Amino acid sequence: MNQSSMKSIKIGIVGLGRLGKRYAENLKFNIRNAKLVAACSLQKEELEYAQNELGITHLFSDYGEMLKLPGLDAIFIVSSTDMHARQITEALKAGLHVFSEKPLAIRTTDCLEVEKVAGQYPNQLAVVGFVRRFDPSYRYAKDKVDAGAIGVPYLVRSQTVDKDTVADWQIQYVGKSGGIFHDFNVHDIDLARWFLNSDVSEVWSIGGAYKYPAFGDAGDADNVMSTCRFKNGTMAVINASRTAMHGHDTYTEVVGTLGTLRIGRPAAKNRVEIYDINGVRKECVETFWDRFEEAFLLMARDFIDCINNNRKPELEISDATQATIVAEAFTKSFKERSLIKINS
Amino acid sequence: MNQSSMKSIKIGIVGLGRLGKRYAENLKFNIRNAKLVAACSLQKEELEYAQNELGITHLFSDYGEMLKLPGLDAIFIVSSTDMHARQITEALKAGLHVFSEKPLAIRTTDCLEVEKVAGQYPNQLAVVGFVRRFDPSYRYAKDKVDAGAIGVPYLVRSQTVDKDTVADWQIQYVGKSGGIFHDFNVHDIDLARWFLNSDVSEVWSIGGAYKYPAFGDAGDADNVMSTCRFKNGTMAVINASRTAMHGHDTYTEVVGTLGTLRIGRPAAKNRVEIYDINGVRKECVETFWDRFEEAFLLMARDFIDCINNNRKPELEISDATQATIVAEAFTKSFKERSLIKINS
Amino acid sequence: MNQSSMKSIKIGIVGLGRLGKRYAENLKFNIRNAKLVAACSLQKEELEYAQNELGITHLFSDYGEMLKLPGLDAIFIVSSTDMHARQITEALKAGLHVFSEKPLAIRTTDCLEVEKVAGQYPNQLAVVGFVRRFDPSYRYAKDKVDAGAIGVPYLVRSQTVDKDTVADWQIQYVGKSGGIFHDFNVHDIDLARWFLNSDVSEVWSIGGAYKYPAFGDAGDADNVMSTCRFKNGTMAVINASRTAMHGHDTYTEVVGTLGTLRIGRPAAKNRVEIYDINGVRKECVETFWDRFEEAFLLMARDFIDCINNNRKPELEISDATQATIVAEAFTKSFKERSLIKINS
Amino acid sequence: MNQSSMKSIKIGIVGLGRLGKRYAENLKFNIRNAKLVAACSLQKEELEYAQNELGITHLFSDYGEMLKLPGLDAIFIVSSTDMHARQITEALKAGLHVFSEKPLAIRTTDCLEVEKVAGQYPNQLAVVGFVRRFDPSYRYAKDKVDAGAIGVPYLVRSQTVDKDTVADWQIQYVGKSGGIFHDFNVHDIDLARWFLNSDVSEVWSIGGAYKYPAFGDAGDADNVMSTCRFKNGTMAVINASRTAMHGHDTYTEVVGTLGTLRIGRPAAKNRVEIYDINGVRKECVETFWDRFEEAFLLMARDFIDCINNNRKPELEISDATQATIVAEAFTKSFKERSLIKINS
Repeated sequence: MNQSSMKSIKIGIVGLGRLGKRYAENLKFNIRNAKLVAACSLQKEELEYAQNELGITHLFSDYGEMLKLPGLDAIFIVSSTDMHARQITEALKAGLHVFSEKPLAIRTTDCLEVEKVAGQYPNQLAVVGFVRRFDPSYRYAKDKVDAGAIGVPYLVRSQTVDKDTVADWQIQYVGKSGGIFHDFNVHDIDLARWFLNSDVSEVWSIGGAYKYPAFGDAGDADNVMSTCRFKNGTMAVINASRTAMHGHDTYTEVVGTLGTLRIGRPAAKNRVEIYDINGVRKECVETFWDRFEEAFLLMARDFIDCINNNRKPELEISDATQATIVAEAFTKSFKERSLIKINS
Repeated sequence: MNQSSMKSIKIGIVGLGRLGKRYAENLKFNIRNAKLVAACSLQKEELEYAQNELGITHLFSDYGEMLKLPGLDAIFIVSSTDMHARQITEALKAGLHVFSEKPLAIRTTDCLEVEKVAGQYPNQLAVVGFVRRFDPSYRYAKDKVDAGAIGVPYLVRSQTVDKDTVADWQIQYVGKSGGIFHDFNVHDIDLARWFLNSDVSEVWSIGGAYKYPAFGDAGDADNVMSTCRFKNGTMAVINASRTAMHGHDTYTEVVGTLGTLRIGRPAAKNRVEIYDINGVRKECVETFWDRFEEAFLLMARDFIDCINNNRKPELEISDATQATIVAEAFTKSFKERSLIKINS
Repeated sequence: MNQSSMKSIKIGIVGLGRLGKRYAENLKFNIRNAKLVAACSLQKEELEYAQNELGITHLFSDYGEMLKLPGLDAIFIVSSTDMHARQITEALKAGLHVFSEKPLAIRTTDCLEVEKVAGQYPNQLAVVGFVRRFDPSYRYAKDKVDAGAIGVPYLVRSQTVDKDTVADWQIQYVGKSGGIFHDFNVHDIDLARWFLNSDVSEVWSIGGAYKYPAFGDAGDADNVMSTCRFKNGTMAVINASRTAMHGHDTYTEVVGTLGTLRIGRPAAKNRVEIYDINGVRKECVETFWDRFEEAFLLMARDFIDCINNNRKPELEISDATQATIVAEAFTKSFKERSLIKINS
Repeated sequence: MNQSSMKSIKIGIVGLGRLGKRYAENLKFNIRNAKLVAACSLQKEELEYAQNELGITHLFSDYGEMLKLPGLDAIFIVSSTDMHARQITEALKAGLHVFSEKPLAIRTTDCLEVEKVAGQYPNQLAVVGFVRRFDPSYRYAKDKVDAGAIGVPYLVRSQTVDKDTVADWQIQYVGKSGGIFHDFNVHDIDLARWFLNSDVSEVWSIGGAYKYPAFGDAGDADNVMSTCRFKNGTMAVINASRTAMHGHDTYTEVVGTLGTLRIGRPAAKNRVEIYDINGVRKECVETFWDRFEEAFLLMARDFIDCINNNRKPELEISDATQATIVAEAFTKSFKERSLIKINS
């Protein structure tokens, strides 16, 4: 079956905040065989955007109503984290494929509940967006590792580091997001599991509110480091930071018995190198979107392609659960100041 | 006027070889407000591709017939170099906007002829695809230069270097393409003019067939270097190579009184760095397409956007003429082993 | 007092193995105001080298005899690790300044014993060679940190990674050297303390014999990672590896609230970059000597300068003790698979 | 014959300005088998320095007198450029080996005169200091090229770029130094000849006083570029700049049929990389001395070693002449605005 005879997948989206708008524009303009037909939001401004900028006519303020729209094939969930689990479950029960932004949930119990429901609908996709796996550089590294280019991988270093744009809302958001380990490191946890082919067995997390004590007052931190032992004896160290001055610096290193792959350093904004009074330098990307714009597009394309080709996505819902399990263990280790064993 | 109320521009394409297919796929799937409705080719296989993969129903083997298709707004020309000038002229006369792959023509006289016709149709776009100007890194550098970040630019180093994939057809193609200066360096000439804000007044080109004597036998070279003096006293050195082992290495450096910008080095394939028995390394892009894929998309989007917003493109047809004038002077200097003055 | 009127310091050296010879040559030829006059070794070959290549006439096989040589000012100890503590003590008691290669000792108790003796001879230098502090790049970074260039440092990543030249003797050497944490990481521990201005309070060390199981059989590892919490709340992660294919890769990163300094990456052999079929690459240094040759010279010069100017060296004997304390804690954590608290 | 039985070479130095002092200190403290015994200068301060800092007792204000000092083996000339030729000649006639800083002379006729005299004293060394050949990175690259690592070299890009520290004295110095081509590019010319194994046959030099018009008023330039065709058909492009903001940026690239070697980019000050509000950057070396300090030492050591081992230095006096011939051609091409053929 060639491209042009592919079925056009009809999609509804929930959540049209900053990231939601980007998903919507990709689905509307840049993904063949995808047809964005419906949008749901509680914000009037967001629905107006959908109507005026994207030409969407099926607009909803009630998620349950959108699910009933005849002919719909799939739902994209880009709402706030605390809505993901429930909205995934409802979409599955409505007979739809579902894609949700990460994380699956803050609490492991919620993840396991979604897993259970997803198991009841084996012919519908339930995918959580671990976008870094779709970044071409990460993908290239993974293929190299799988091909044996670095021998047996035994160490992963990975970090999610945001440019320092700390504002009050970020401190207030700590409660909602589950804190820095959930908000920043689920990607790194997923990548470490991906590259090391194993699950985490024991963790130690340390850190502090070195720059913004308010994070400490809120029970969180601005910089943390977690060390992991995996079941197969391999290891990982995972960092998160809210305070980088140079830019958004997502970075992963995979060390094996025959070589090392480093992905993403420096976090260059583009291919321009500047020679000036500061020396020789590269400017860095500002945000995760600047870094992963292409990956977000490829991830959505892959989801559509999975539906059209009846193909299983590489990342399963249980991978998303594992990321939450480990982020929960990090949080516990950090708060209790002790090693935490993960039994799973 | 918001995006969704933009007019959908109806496009016909001529030439569906390797690069033509990529243009066609961009126009079909990735550019909002563009509608690829017609295709023209002398190759049966290419028309079948248009029909089966892109779902195009208006198929032509006669370019003149395609131009008559009612409702057409614009033509994309991705045919062989020797067809560009004539096909641009005919499209303009048919009342259509026209975009053509570079170069405008091998001979300056042909360029000037097109310029004259274009002047008669001031309300239709006639754009030649100098794709590097649309690469985000080149664009970023240009904006920096214009903002004064490096003071007054006085030196450009620029090169077009292909990975060594030399095969017999390339040697035979020398006649058709006009040789290495036309085929490789029109981009570099255009960039040097762009950054230095002046025209070339005098050139010296040297080089040889250092690796493949067959290029020498054909009156061409496999590696060349051209030095340019500009009318405003600034200077450029422009290289071309067919023989790089590490990859396609397009690169430009702009030196000013307060700093230097280097664009494109190393020509990294992606954000992966490899530590292995060879040391620490980056792999490089293989082809100009790998390097400029995004720029090709942005360039086509800009063309559509110019039509829709009745906006003048930055690059004028006379810029394309200038590139040919200088490439002709390079060729003459190389063959006659002398300095060549350009009077224009 | 100008340079030429400085006193010439008369030195005896013990140990003329591979590293000892390098110390001797520096002392003989490259350090003004140093005069290498005596050498001690149990190896006949080494004494012949001293006589023939360096022109030294006072040759000893008995360390105690060398200490009695009239006019001697200082001793350099480049013998095996298990001799350091005793030889330092004896030299101090003989009234001499003493410089010893690292580590001070494998066991903390031995370190404390030396500290006690050194305290009884406050007018004699007792210095342990933590060479990395004298590397110009490390020194430059330290000065930047002290000047506030990166704000408050809160995280150090540091590693000692050897090129894989694993041979049987290295496995046998494990017992004598105290294992990978003592042999590789005392430098990293010292640097982390130096940059973070605090002592280690708690550690977790993990790792394995991923490439050479024989290290595991010997109770050691070929790759390890240790996470440290410091008393002032800051943190460090310290790695060691015996198995890098690309070269000796000593590397330290200091992260602060306003910036990050990375020292030593890539571990480039020189200023040559190679473009070839492997992409774009730098070759790496082979050994710690290739990397730190200049630092070894500067360290010895500093020692002589301290004597001549009656100046205190920056690094005190207690710093060497701390490095051993932490290396012991790493080893214990690794073997007992638990967090280890350091009470000091 | 082992090292310690080598003869100690007795040396006199003429010129103890900034660079002369550095030569003197190397000869005094860092080169085995060299004994700096005499110094000559017209500046009282310089002779006092020699006496007080270096402990030299044979002090001269008359060069001819120094040459008569009994027991002297060799002379180092670090005087101003216009003295080199005469002082070399006199030293040779006095029966001494002679090392002179570059350039040999500004005028080719003076070079040839020295060559003639040197030919009359075949058992005495007459060496001009083209220091870059002794830089370990340049040496490494040369060995790689000679071993065939990049196939046949056909293109050299080389530049001497100074950090912008332009002051009035530099403009006044133009007359004495022979201008930017002589002062900056003799090194690059020598390196291009070294790597391409051929002599220059034709050149075109362009440039201007883009930042400091005063250089233009003095008949010189602040930035120039010279293109060279070599007798064997290969090519080089050579740049000089007085106006870099980022540092001293000496750089050479050798392109061959199988690969490229790039030497010296970026001109990093050390192994520290800085992540801060400017992005990710390396600071650069400030001066040629910072960049080539080690090479100056190795070059002087090689000279002493040649004497002691009765070995011919790699670089002959005729190489120095060639550098002057080409620099003269550059200057002529720049002034006459034409191609210049070199007949030699």
